[in-house]
This record gives sequence, structure tokens and C-alpha cells, in this order.
Amino acid sequence: MEKNGVNVDQLIGTIEAVKGDPEVAKFQFRSKTKWVEGGHCKTEFRNFYGAKTEDSTRTETIVVEGDEPGILLGKNRGANAVEAILHALASCLTVGFVYNAAASGIAIESLEFELEGDIDLHAFLGLSEQKRPGYDNIRVKYKVKADAPQEKLDELFEYVKKTSPVLDMLENPVKVSWEAA
Amino acid sequence: MEKNGVNVDQLIGTIEAVKGDPEVAKFQFRSKTKWVEGGHCKTEFRNFYGAKTEDSTRTETIVVEGDEPGILLGKNRGANAVEAILHALASCLTVGFVYNAAASGIAIESLEFELEGDIDLHAFLGLSEQKRPGYDNIRVKYKVKADAPQEKLDELFEYVKKTSPVLDMLENPVKVSWEAA
Repeated sequence: MEKNGVNVDQLIGTIEAVKGDPEVAKFQFRSKTKWVEGGHCKTEFRNFYGAKTEDSTRTETIVVEGDEPGILLGKNRGANAVEAILHALASCLTVGFVYNAAASGIAIESLEFELEGDIDLHAFLGLSEQKRPGYDNIRVKYKVKADAPQEKLDELFEYVKKTSPVLDMLENPVKVSWEAA
Repeated sequence: MEKNGVNVDQLIGTIEAVKGDPEVAKFQFRSKTKWVEGGHCKTEFRNFYGAKTEDSTRTETIVVEGDEPGILLGKNRGANAVEAILHALASCLTVGFVYNAAASGIAIESLEFELEGDIDLHAFLGLSEQKRPGYDNIRVKYKVKADAPQEKLDELFEYVKKTSPVLDMLENPVKVSWEAA
């Protein structure tokens, strides 16, 4: 059965597989980023580890480009790093909402997110150790049309917020470790 | 003067402008994300606010696509949300390193980042409230070739880590607020 373009049988199968063997839920994602010129870089994604196996089913490398706008010395060859954070969050909420709606039998007609992030560049420019380098806050506006009462959709969205990997990483500290190659 | 593809005069001009008027450093970035089908979404970036003005100098909309791999019920039409986080971090470190190297007169020959993120999908699948939804940890491997001693490059990288907006947002909590449209 398919709902919202999601194979619900596969989704339930995945949940059952994880219940049967917790190791199935362990994933490792990887990226390779090369600087091109100025503020421009290219990140490649291909293989990853998940469901107890090295996953090499992607037949093409996925490429994401990063750059800055003119005022920040770039040439717009991609979104910048803090814009990429907005995409990561919205994309995470989208998948969470759509998959969980599918599992609940809710058909989504449309789903949109508008995000804003306020940032002060003093820290990035080395002009303040008091101000934080990242966003002071992110505002998320969402709009959904689906065949369920608003109350049910709001409840679903609250659940999505609780289980969103990217929202968790923004709201709570993530451990980052370093290695020079 | 240009270094690493960065207009160093403009960079110094920006720093001086912020020193003269702190309001110049305030930026607001924005994104619009629309769900397409299944795990697939498209995020658009165009205008933003910065340097005391609404910036509409981008002549084209920048689009980033998100999707999941097959094992996570998608069709690889983009990197997934937690992969997008790896790109955001690497792209942020790239810009920070390249711009600060330019300001210090260091010419970079090559700069590469390889990232790995370990995630357990129990929380995302609604199977655990103990495990966190996001990455348990992110490992960053970096490799740089430049016309400066390794010690100087390591020192520069430590500075970049201290001032990186995306690293800050991963290592420290960000406030996220919500609004239904």
C-alpha cells in the first residue's frame, strides 16, 4: 500500500525489523567536501552504512554546492552554510510529517515550510567573543493541507518535532570530534 | 587584492564597516520548502536581509532538493536531512578557513573535509524515548595544503572552529520557534 508516495508496507516492515533487532536502526552517513574557489565548495554523498550493511545502492553520487552571496564575498553558486541548516531542518520535518502521516493513513495534499534565521556576524568576523557565531533563533512557519482535522495534524506535528533528528541536533548539543588527515 | 578567490579588500572593508556600525553585522536568512512526493522536497533560497538592507542581488533562485535513499523509502532525488547537516558543517568550515587564510595572506592549494555521522533511528521511528533522534556524534577529518607551516594552519583551524556558525549551532542549543500558517 502506498500513501503520500510512501510505501507503507516497507515502512511497517522497517519498524518491525528494528523491533526484532536493534542493530538494524544503526546508520552512518558520510560526506566528502572539496573547496573549489572563494566561498564555493562541493559536497558529495554516495555510500553509507545502515540496516547492518554497507549500502551502495545509490547509482549516482549526490552533489550539493555551497557558496556565499556577493555581500559575503561569494558568487551564489549555492546556498551558504547557514541557509543549508534551514534546508536540513525543513527537509527533516517534511520527511517526518509525510512518513508519519502515511503510517496514520492521512493523505497530504500540500505541505510547506518557511524558515527564517537571525544571525549576527560579529563572531564569524572575529569581532566579538560575547555574541554566538550561529543563529540566535530560527522561526518555522508551516502550512499543511490534508484529509484530517487540524487538531489531528497539530498532534502529528508535535510528534514529528519530538522525533526529528535535525531539530534534536539544533536544540541539543552534538558531539563533534576532529582528525587531521 | 585577491587571495584564494576571496576579495581581501572587500573582506577588510566589511570588517571595518561592522566595527563602525554593529547593525551592519545583522543578517536574516530565509528558506521556502515544498514537499513534492514521498521523502522528496525542494527548498528555495533567494532574498535575505543583511548589512542594513533587504538583499535582492541574487538573480536566480537557489534550489536544494532533499530525499531519502531506498532503504529509507526514498528515491535518492537529493541528500537526506542528516546528510544535509554534514554538508552545512563542512561548507561552513570551508568558508571560515578560506576567508581567514585569505585575510592572513595564506594561499590554499587544496582543502578537503570528510565527515561521518552516527545515528540510531529508534527515536525517529518512534521506538525509543531514551535514544536521541539526531547524530550521537559527528567525526570531521580535514586535509589542507597551503603555503604555511602545519602549526600555523592548525592554529588557523582552531580559530575557525571557535567562530563557525554551524559548528556553534551543533555544539550549543539553538532556539527554534513555531507558527502555523
